[in-house]
Amino acid sequence: MKQFTRSITLFCLLGIMLPAGLKAQKSDSLMVRRIFDYYLLKAKSYDNLRYLTTRIGGRLSGSPQAAKAVDWAKKAMYDAGADTVYLQPCKVPHWVRGAAEQCQMFSKGIKTPLNICALGGSVATPKTGLTAEVIEVKSFEELDSLGEKNIKGRIVFYNVFFDQAKLSTGAMYGESVKYRWAGASRAAKYGAVATMVRSMSSVDNDFPHTGAMGYDTTVSKRKIPSCALSYAAASKLAAALVKDQHTQVSLKMSCTMLPDELSYNVVGEIEGSENADEIILAGGHLDSWDNGQGAHDDGSGVVQAIEVLAMFKQLGIKPKHTIRAVAFMNEENGGAGGKAYFEDTKEKGLKHILAIESDAGGFCPRGIGVDTLHGAYKRLLSWKPVLNEYYLQYIDAGGGGADISRLRDLGVPLLGIEPDGQKYFDYHHTADDTFDKVNKRELHLSAGIIGSIVYLVDFYGI
Amino acid sequence: MKQFTRSITLFCLLGIMLPAGLKAQKSDSLMVRRIFDYYLLKAKSYDNLRYLTTRIGGRLSGSPQAAKAVDWAKKAMYDAGADTVYLQPCKVPHWVRGAAEQCQMFSKGIKTPLNICALGGSVATPKTGLTAEVIEVKSFEELDSLGEKNIKGRIVFYNVFFDQAKLSTGAMYGESVKYRWAGASRAAKYGAVATMVRSMSSVDNDFPHTGAMGYDTTVSKRKIPSCALSYAAASKLAAALVKDQHTQVSLKMSCTMLPDELSYNVVGEIEGSENADEIILAGGHLDSWDNGQGAHDDGSGVVQAIEVLAMFKQLGIKPKHTIRAVAFMNEENGGAGGKAYFEDTKEKGLKHILAIESDAGGFCPRGIGVDTLHGAYKRLLSWKPVLNEYYLQYIDAGGGGADISRLRDLGVPLLGIEPDGQKYFDYHHTADDTFDKVNKRELHLSAGIIGSIVYLVDFYGI
Repeated sequence: MKQFTRSITLFCLLGIMLPAGLKAQKSDSLMVRRIFDYYLLKAKSYDNLRYLTTRIGGRLSGSPQAAKAVDWAKKAMYDAGADTVYLQPCKVPHWVRGAAEQCQMFSKGIKTPLNICALGGSVATPKTGLTAEVIEVKSFEELDSLGEKNIKGRIVFYNVFFDQAKLSTGAMYGESVKYRWAGASRAAKYGAVATMVRSMSSVDNDFPHTGAMGYDTTVSKRKIPSCALSYAAASKLAAALVKDQHTQVSLKMSCTMLPDELSYNVVGEIEGSENADEIILAGGHLDSWDNGQGAHDDGSGVVQAIEVLAMFKQLGIKPKHTIRAVAFMNEENGGAGGKAYFEDTKEKGLKHILAIESDAGGFCPRGIGVDTLHGAYKRLLSWKPVLNEYYLQYIDAGGGGADISRLRDLGVPLLGIEPDGQKYFDYHHTADDTFDKVNKRELHLSAGIIGSIVYLVDFYGI
Repeated sequence: MKQFTRSITLFCLLGIMLPAGLKAQKSDSLMVRRIFDYYLLKAKSYDNLRYLTTRIGGRLSGSPQAAKAVDWAKKAMYDAGADTVYLQPCKVPHWVRGAAEQCQMFSKGIKTPLNICALGGSVATPKTGLTAEVIEVKSFEELDSLGEKNIKGRIVFYNVFFDQAKLSTGAMYGESVKYRWAGASRAAKYGAVATMVRSMSSVDNDFPHTGAMGYDTTVSKRKIPSCALSYAAASKLAAALVKDQHTQVSLKMSCTMLPDELSYNVVGEIEGSENADEIILAGGHLDSWDNGQGAHDDGSGVVQAIEVLAMFKQLGIKPKHTIRAVAFMNEENGGAGGKAYFEDTKEKGLKHILAIESDAGGFCPRGIGVDTLHGAYKRLLSWKPVLNEYYLQYIDAGGGGADISRLRDLGVPLLGIEPDGQKYFDYHHTADDTFDKVNKRELHLSAGIIGSIVYLVDFYGI
């Protein structure tokens, strides 16, 4: 009965608002259609992505390719129509993979090569490699219960699968990524000589998936090498261990951490014509892992952010607020760019009325995640009917992105575009994250959702 | 004000119905979750698709591969748990591509090879090929206005692009496919010696897209060879014609139409425990074009239909109604299977309470198309909240599938699963429609939507 009364109240409110709302909705529909005509017929996101991924390629923080990507992003933002492009300095870690990356399994007298890649941040093995027996664990609990007597001198193999019953691949990743991030120190504590993780992936193939790991010296002072096995290699190793618990692995990795490098976020803006001191930010991250081309992660987000500037210019719309496209540096292994942006914002007392990040692949739109259920969320929901036909299925709680997350402390509403995610972790952090995996229309449709939201927020405020 | 009153009435009705509805919804939610656990963790659709596409391959009606596919489908249906599997005979056309399929362009003295494929049903060129100047048209209207004096002795090139501003790739295809289907006779009427179409595709690559064409002898008695140029080849030809209107093309195709063959629909069923004489049908088509593996079109639909049987068996649910999985023959170039199914249904006076077809690729679910806005549609809409979290964005008007379409005449509600369609026409009817283009989770998610709908219709009726 309570629900009934509340619904009646809501209904009456809606009833009164209907005529004006419908009118606005009709003009919004026309404008959003114009925006999508631009995105589907003229946008340069796909061409920009081709250049960034195939001409510059993988661009890990501190690398020459990352420096080239900074120069490229600056030019691309000016080309898109930015009034001004800033380079915002940040000190980034400079980890390099090195030439050697080899792994063999020895089981029942048979030698089998296994596809691996060092995890970002890992130390190298000794130059001649290391060879040890492998112990498989399915969880940190199992690791702890096995303890030093079973682990000392061995390589710990975190054989943790994605939970395929889940609907969101991001949720699966969220559950298993802790073994990649924290597994080395947890195992080193019990005397392990190295760790291997099953790649954080939803697909059974032979690409190993890299990604950031860290050493927690409060857990163990020993830093041991840490790598990812491809899904297929992990399955081979697990099968071998069933038959032969003395299965050994020999591992050679020559990765190393060099001194920090100076790098930059690239910030392009069109100054607002009415509220120049209020910023709407669209961002993605410019750095990517070194092994692939960083197409879905996150070249797509960067070119979509840049396209927001082009959209205003090409449609001849003078934004009321200042529109910023931000290509963040160092999302993958440190977050220095997001931190520098936050600090600059705080120091200068800049006001952002909205920040939206795209860092979940260049796939067809599905939804928008919103970090707050108040204010901005209600406003966005009112635009859902208009965006629905452009494949926006939902607007839901829990959004944002790593690079913009600190802005939450300044009360900025944060949004994250959530494209169709079933294939994201097929490519994520692998040599297979290449330009050809991105479909032009899908990339541009998601870009169009971002462009439309920025337009609507600029026009109406939030 | 009128709207206000109607809404009040609707609201009150909803208010009264709420408690019972919510209760059903909760138990439905639990059951649908159980169904998706099955699909995401145990379903065999992907493994079945691997076999069908990589072990049997392309399987055009009348081919030895199509015959093998019939045997395979029969076995797969029994393996899935069918009580009975019928082979339902139908006479199918038997067109073969032949060995020769060559095309060169001669423009300003330069010879350039162009990627083509004969359209299904086309006659061959003379054995030594044919060479003629090319005339480009953008529409039938342009063709008609050019007339015999411009067309006689030439090859007509229908250079019609997909309208990329549209959101649905199916709608783009619907607009341009007439040039593939009817272009030959329309051009032959004015004395053309052959026709070429720009591939019906939304992506710029070098795969030519085949597909059915027909000769309309009421338009022209002359049957001329007809082929598709890849998107890239069509662009090369169009560019050459801008510079040299005397550009010639030489064409060699050895395709031929053999006598009709006997083939079969494969119909597997689980007899209903309460209403055995009422059938719920899930179908896809078993035949595919010869140039690829028929993975998205329509191996996916077939394995999803077969999985419906397995779902009931594996979850230990005895269906009330008779559940049929149907692998239709000859959707691609004749529709003999759909016709035979309809005639058998009519002759035996069989009653179908629902037919659902999957023939739009093995991608992630987006929606369900329903052929009627009455009865079944309202029932389906009531289940939308339950299916929404499994990526079912919409239930909308205008569904079905070519194979089941005749059942409309018998008053059967027709449904079509509409997966995310942006990439469908990248692969459709090409050598690139291969198993590796299908993502296991996406295939199983759409299969789960089909399984859930069949379950709900069986449980509640419609």
